[in-house]
Amino acid sequence: WDGEFFPGIPKIKYEGPSSKNPLSFKWYNAEEEILGKKMKDWMRFSVAFWHTFRGTGADPFGAPTKLWPWEDGTNSLAIAKRRLRANFEFLEKLGVERWCFHDRDIAPEGKTLEETNANLDEVVALAKKLQGNKIRLLWGTAQLFLHPRYMHGAATSPELSVYAYAAAQVKKAMEVTHYLGGENYVFWGGREGYQSLLNTDMERELDHMARFMEAAVAYKKKIGFKGILLIEPKPQEPTKHQYDWDAATSANFLRKYGLIGDFKLNIECNHATLAGHSCHHELETARINGLLGNIDANTGDPQIGWDTDQFLMDVAEATLVMQSVIKNGGLAPGGFNFDAKLRRESTDVDDLFIAHIAGMDTLARGLRNAAKLIEDGSLNDLVKKRYSSFDTEFGAAIEAGKADFELLEKKALEWGEPKVPSGKQELAEMIFQSTL
Amino acid sequence: WDGEFFPGIPKIKYEGPSSKNPLSFKWYNAEEEILGKKMKDWMRFSVAFWHTFRGTGADPFGAPTKLWPWEDGTNSLAIAKRRLRANFEFLEKLGVERWCFHDRDIAPEGKTLEETNANLDEVVALAKKLQGNKIRLLWGTAQLFLHPRYMHGAATSPELSVYAYAAAQVKKAMEVTHYLGGENYVFWGGREGYQSLLNTDMERELDHMARFMEAAVAYKKKIGFKGILLIEPKPQEPTKHQYDWDAATSANFLRKYGLIGDFKLNIECNHATLAGHSCHHELETARINGLLGNIDANTGDPQIGWDTDQFLMDVAEATLVMQSVIKNGGLAPGGFNFDAKLRRESTDVDDLFIAHIAGMDTLARGLRNAAKLIEDGSLNDLVKKRYSSFDTEFGAAIEAGKADFELLEKKALEWGEPKVPSGKQELAEMIFQSTL
Amino acid sequence: WDGEFFPGIPKIKYEGPSSKNPLSFKWYNAEEEILGKKMKDWMRFSVAFWHTFRGTGADPFGAPTKLWPWEDGTNSLAIAKRRLRANFEFLEKLGVERWCFHDRDIAPEGKTLEETNANLDEVVALAKKLQGNKIRLLWGTAQLFLHPRYMHGAATSPELSVYAYAAAQVKKAMEVTHYLGGENYVFWGGREGYQSLLNTDMERELDHMARFMEAAVAYKKKIGFKGILLIEPKPQEPTKHQYDWDAATSANFLRKYGLIGDFKLNIECNHATLAGHSCHHELETARINGLLGNIDANTGDPQIGWDTDQFLMDVAEATLVMQSVIKNGGLAPGGFNFDAKLRRESTDVDDLFIAHIAGMDTLARGLRNAAKLIEDGSLNDLVKKRYSSFDTEFGAAIEAGKADFELLEKKALEWGEPKVPSGKQELAEMIFQSTL
Amino acid sequence: WDGEFFPGIPKIKYEGPSSKNPLSFKWYNAEEEILGKKMKDWMRFSVAFWHTFRGTGADPFGAPTKLWPWEDGTNSLAIAKRRLRANFEFLEKLGVERWCFHDRDIAPEGKTLEETNANLDEVVALAKKLQGNKIRLLWGTAQLFLHPRYMHGAATSPELSVYAYAAAQVKKAMEVTHYLGGENYVFWGGREGYQSLLNTDMERELDHMARFMEAAVAYKKKIGFKGILLIEPKPQEPTKHQYDWDAATSANFLRKYGLIGDFKLNIECNHATLAGHSCHHELETARINGLLGNIDANTGDPQIGWDTDQFLMDVAEATLVMQSVIKNGGLAPGGFNFDAKLRRESTDVDDLFIAHIAGMDTLARGLRNAAKLIEDGSLNDLVKKRYSSFDTEFGAAIEAGKADFELLEKKALEWGEPKVPSGKQELAEMIFQSTL
Repeated sequence: WDGEFFPGIPKIKYEGPSSKNPLSFKWYNAEEEILGKKMKDWMRFSVAFWHTFRGTGADPFGAPTKLWPWEDGTNSLAIAKRRLRANFEFLEKLGVERWCFHDRDIAPEGKTLEETNANLDEVVALAKKLQGNKIRLLWGTAQLFLHPRYMHGAATSPELSVYAYAAAQVKKAMEVTHYLGGENYVFWGGREGYQSLLNTDMERELDHMARFMEAAVAYKKKIGFKGILLIEPKPQEPTKHQYDWDAATSANFLRKYGLIGDFKLNIECNHATLAGHSCHHELETARINGLLGNIDANTGDPQIGWDTDQFLMDVAEATLVMQSVIKNGGLAPGGFNFDAKLRRESTDVDDLFIAHIAGMDTLARGLRNAAKLIEDGSLNDLVKKRYSSFDTEFGAAIEAGKADFELLEKKALEWGEPKVPSGKQELAEMIFQSTL
Repeated sequence: WDGEFFPGIPKIKYEGPSSKNPLSFKWYNAEEEILGKKMKDWMRFSVAFWHTFRGTGADPFGAPTKLWPWEDGTNSLAIAKRRLRANFEFLEKLGVERWCFHDRDIAPEGKTLEETNANLDEVVALAKKLQGNKIRLLWGTAQLFLHPRYMHGAATSPELSVYAYAAAQVKKAMEVTHYLGGENYVFWGGREGYQSLLNTDMERELDHMARFMEAAVAYKKKIGFKGILLIEPKPQEPTKHQYDWDAATSANFLRKYGLIGDFKLNIECNHATLAGHSCHHELETARINGLLGNIDANTGDPQIGWDTDQFLMDVAEATLVMQSVIKNGGLAPGGFNFDAKLRRESTDVDDLFIAHIAGMDTLARGLRNAAKLIEDGSLNDLVKKRYSSFDTEFGAAIEAGKADFELLEKKALEWGEPKVPSGKQELAEMIFQSTL
Repeated sequence: WDGEFFPGIPKIKYEGPSSKNPLSFKWYNAEEEILGKKMKDWMRFSVAFWHTFRGTGADPFGAPTKLWPWEDGTNSLAIAKRRLRANFEFLEKLGVERWCFHDRDIAPEGKTLEETNANLDEVVALAKKLQGNKIRLLWGTAQLFLHPRYMHGAATSPELSVYAYAAAQVKKAMEVTHYLGGENYVFWGGREGYQSLLNTDMERELDHMARFMEAAVAYKKKIGFKGILLIEPKPQEPTKHQYDWDAATSANFLRKYGLIGDFKLNIECNHATLAGHSCHHELETARINGLLGNIDANTGDPQIGWDTDQFLMDVAEATLVMQSVIKNGGLAPGGFNFDAKLRRESTDVDDLFIAHIAGMDTLARGLRNAAKLIEDGSLNDLVKKRYSSFDTEFGAAIEAGKADFELLEKKALEWGEPKVPSGKQELAEMIFQSTL
Repeated sequence: WDGEFFPGIPKIKYEGPSSKNPLSFKWYNAEEEILGKKMKDWMRFSVAFWHTFRGTGADPFGAPTKLWPWEDGTNSLAIAKRRLRANFEFLEKLGVERWCFHDRDIAPEGKTLEETNANLDEVVALAKKLQGNKIRLLWGTAQLFLHPRYMHGAATSPELSVYAYAAAQVKKAMEVTHYLGGENYVFWGGREGYQSLLNTDMERELDHMARFMEAAVAYKKKIGFKGILLIEPKPQEPTKHQYDWDAATSANFLRKYGLIGDFKLNIECNHATLAGHSCHHELETARINGLLGNIDANTGDPQIGWDTDQFLMDVAEATLVMQSVIKNGGLAPGGFNFDAKLRRESTDVDDLFIAHIAGMDTLARGLRNAAKLIEDGSLNDLVKKRYSSFDTEFGAAIEAGKADFELLEKKALEWGEPKVPSGKQELAEMIFQSTL
């Protein structure tokens, strides 16, 4: 495979909102400053290697539909390297400076773990070269869900030998992430959960998962990896119940086992909605718990009960997402990884570009709107005013834990029936929508 | 109102499974021993005063349908006392030895908090007398959701004066619970949450809720109340998001604010399913976190997205519930409170008995089945065998946190590809169903 | 009550998108022409009397919160008339020319049906006067769900006397709708369904409902009412299953009983999402079946499983709604009824205006966007091109039912493996979002 | 592959409820008469070839886990025949006399349609022989969803050549079904729907689907196939919206296009729950519309939003299912096809038997319970009594359509306020549960 992978696609440029060119940015202008920071530094976009280069279009009822021209139908080392080159050309043309991968996405599994690790090393060496000093690895991770050995879990498998195998795999994945200058390392426990409580010892499995995470923290320190360890919550699918159900559940796990200072969370919007939350809620929950580390940018379908991993195209939702990011002071060393896939029926090479451009533009538009909301100030004022009774001396006493029930009762009797003003929700919604 | 409230209803007796008499127990035999304990001591049933004596049959589209003969359409003190007597006759005929109430269920609100407290004291004095030494108060609680003053929350209201009012109300409710010998005290934060994040400072609200709970713990100690403080998780309704979403979210809150040793949870089955969990899952999550304190026994409808609070009539679900209770060593000082209401369209006085009898029988049948499962042993063996690879020296080392990634990798390389046996889920389901 | 009901509120004017005045329109400009028709003729907005003037803010866990200054806490005839005057002042200031009501919203129920009808007549006479020649009644309907007599259904009640009572009530409601020049008449069968199949004869109930609808059609003809009869689908709430579940279910009912030509549908967005559909889907299903008659404009919350009846504030959704309306050639004699209510916590009189203004603006913005999409043409072209293989002679033969399996097999063998192009979903989404 | 496929598995026998042998029936006793018919004639069980012999255990996040000993990892004709022999041995040992298949399950696709048809003929000839006169084909169907050519639909593909290809495939599948003595022929339109309305002309697609179904009806007549044509509703998955959403939606389609007399429905329990209905509801809806033809026996998980296709193990649900079947006078020429699959983690050959045995036993137990309910009679009486006011002369007039609104109003005025008795739902539930 000589020359370009995407010969018909130019370097994608910013052409502004009036452009009708699908292969241009209408809102994302990488170098433009918003609220004192370049757009690209707010966003820190990353392409997910698995969806973009290993996504086949298969679904539970359908065979693969993607037949990219650089593929030959095999999972050989040679093709693995070719795909990697396609990835770096894609990043360059799209103007995205980060990528993410699972170990098994980029290199084929061998007959033994030794052979698998050797395959991985060979591909990683090429990745190091292709990264050069322009491209960074946002995060790496280990694929602990596809292989049948992990069908009952990896760290939570009832089989000790699987636990050991998973540990060996994560060890290696952490090493190559470190070698490639990865900024974070992610744990998504797709099989860490149960299909039925009837055959499961949930307590023992959770204990095993905690031991595994402790060992990961220890190994991170040992090899001097400075990136952030991230847990990615998801409520279910493939399991009936996944132990990292949502942000609060993951936080409880981390607190229970004394791991709270060692991890942050990678929040995915589609996982949020599957858990019965808005994406905004999960981001805020993570932020308030000091755990907002990275965002897997995608969206689901409100009428669908499984992970659709669509590119986020809703400007209102993107604005709420960016509000949380701004409140968090940005995401660095985390970023926005596009954990989103082309629809099964989108089979043109240029669909890969169109989908990413639309996703980047939507979030960029969200950033512009969030900045407008802050500059306008009226929504912020509305919220601040609602809580102003606590911005008093007695309010401060309550917030400092100095008001006991007897004192509070005394005040309540003194004050009589409280006056309760309107919550002004419709006004807040009007202000929000007007800014879009 | 002289004489009996339920003149046509006899004392309900155990007649065994072959009885066709709706006003008899077919499975619940209070004094019979199961697994070394009387059925009544496993169950510790309680009638929820609000559903049974204050439930009107109203719904969001419909006016009240219940016109119990002892009511006169008012909420006077006199009627409050009459209702209370009806409650104790109901308990006696049903053979239930515990009850639960909200402060505002049993006594009418006055024009001022002082007057309201005086009303409460008057009714509580009667309750004390009627309890005698046969009936116990399983728990009391404060109704912090019905009155408009609480529309934005109680402990999480943006209005400081509402926070103080709520504190005064909880203080009093704790006092009367203590006075009545209450075994527990419950917090259900029906308004502690948000309708929209746009007008909400979630972080500040959660901090306020923590301060409130700390003050409750301090007050409990001050008055010498020895009962358990229970938080009742519910994901939403009436709010879009309730801060005590589910067991794990509540546990995270308790851990974050250092309250984990001071509270347990009151798990409600219908709240579990609204949060996307099976009831069994929530019970096990509470148990594993050392937090299973009480059960609000009811069930929802799997096709309905709001709290239906139906009497649990599903034997399979009841068996799973009782499995958790047995693993927990029982619930005492907690119990099973029937947080369940007659359907709007069930308007006969005897429907009140039929519903409770069916609910008690279903849980009693669940207990009998759970005992059978334990005696049979084959399901337990299946589970134990699945984890047996960890019942080894190396397994113990892992569980003790002594196996680091390097050691585990060494073992993984040594052992090669793991053998992974069948999960036997269908066999587990077959065994389970056969016992029902 | 003399003088104005809303003294602080001016007549709401169009001030354009840059206005920051909450009491102005930013997108709705009644007289402006879009696609050859005035905005007000596209929209035909209507205020729902029940939500706006009878909404109390109560919810299943909370008492009323709205204490409008013109109310005195009673449901007297005098207050009924005062409310009606408030309604017409509200319409005038808002610039909305239509309203909708249930019989029992506008006039109190008396001790007998005769007295109730007399009350209704008295209020309706005032309404006729207040309507003058500026305000129209978009539709009337009978409230067949609030009163306990309807707890098992109205047309589907197992009680024959309830069926008769409901018929008498609908008869009268049709008469007053006709008298007030109503453009449509609506059936929402909130209790026409079941809570449990165990105690229900669904087949017999559906037959009764059909008989009832036939009688309504006959009576419409008898009194010379020319308006459209509309069925409003809703899947559930208050019942577990409502017989008019969604558009397709309602269409099946109408077809099965030979009523298809006599009714259209009133589609409500929040009901659509409760049924598992997008609002756009329900509108298109109604339209394709020739049944799109009216829209109950509101929205739900994608994370909430009950009817929240929020004002629609989502511009993307509003654009899809208006696309269907444009394809339908407008809605006349139907329109957009705001079947939406203030949040319980919104308790200022001006919240009533803010909510309606935001709702009207959002739909107006949707209309502007839908017009832009049509003028731009590229989305339409994309769709047309996808089906172009059927715009051929053989395609026409298939569509005319002239291609049997043998002919089709012959062609399939001749043509070999089909070429299947990309579905271009992300491109379609990009075009759509760019227009917003 | 010589000799037995399941050497360790004996012919499964009925051993009664006290048996602990997983490889025995505890409730299904094929020749035993219940309500005047043999159990096997009520049930007419069928094994689904695709789940049992082509199910790989793969899921969206996982590779195949099943490595049955008779497979060699290829999809060759030789293996296809071997699998078929395994199927017939399985049927024989299980004591099931029917099977179902998709064309592509039993024979591999060739390079051309001609080659594919030849492969199919070769396998079908073997099937004919193996069926002998003991085994019947419950139904055949065409797999119109797996191959990428069908990614946009088959009968509803925007590509005319795909429509023709699908027609050719269905033609052949109908022929082989007829050749094998099939009792029914099924249409499951897994790709007949849309992923997004933005790029879809729903009206045109539905018209095409109707033309396709008309052609199928014509071809059925042409070849003299006497079996029933069945449509299998499913709301979504793989598409966002499938046109055969549920029973009512399918009935509307059939009525709209004049096909109502030519088709019945194949109701699947898991599809029912995905559509927001209980399985019982869908069965009753089909039955009432005269459309209940066959049942795809399985169940879903109430907390999971995708098709889990589990073996039905819930006795209460099975009892409700059997109630509908009894009311329908049985299902013949339809039956119960086990459209259920082993869990991914169940990988033993004997799990195939255990799962089927448990599913058969559960339905058999449901039949026994449904018969008990009928014999007991009290539930039936409760329902009949509820509607008894219509079992009168005036009730008959209403049901005959002879009571117009004026007559009904006259009666309503005469009768005054209706008396409405209790719905007795809890009593109905108590009776139902007591029978289990």
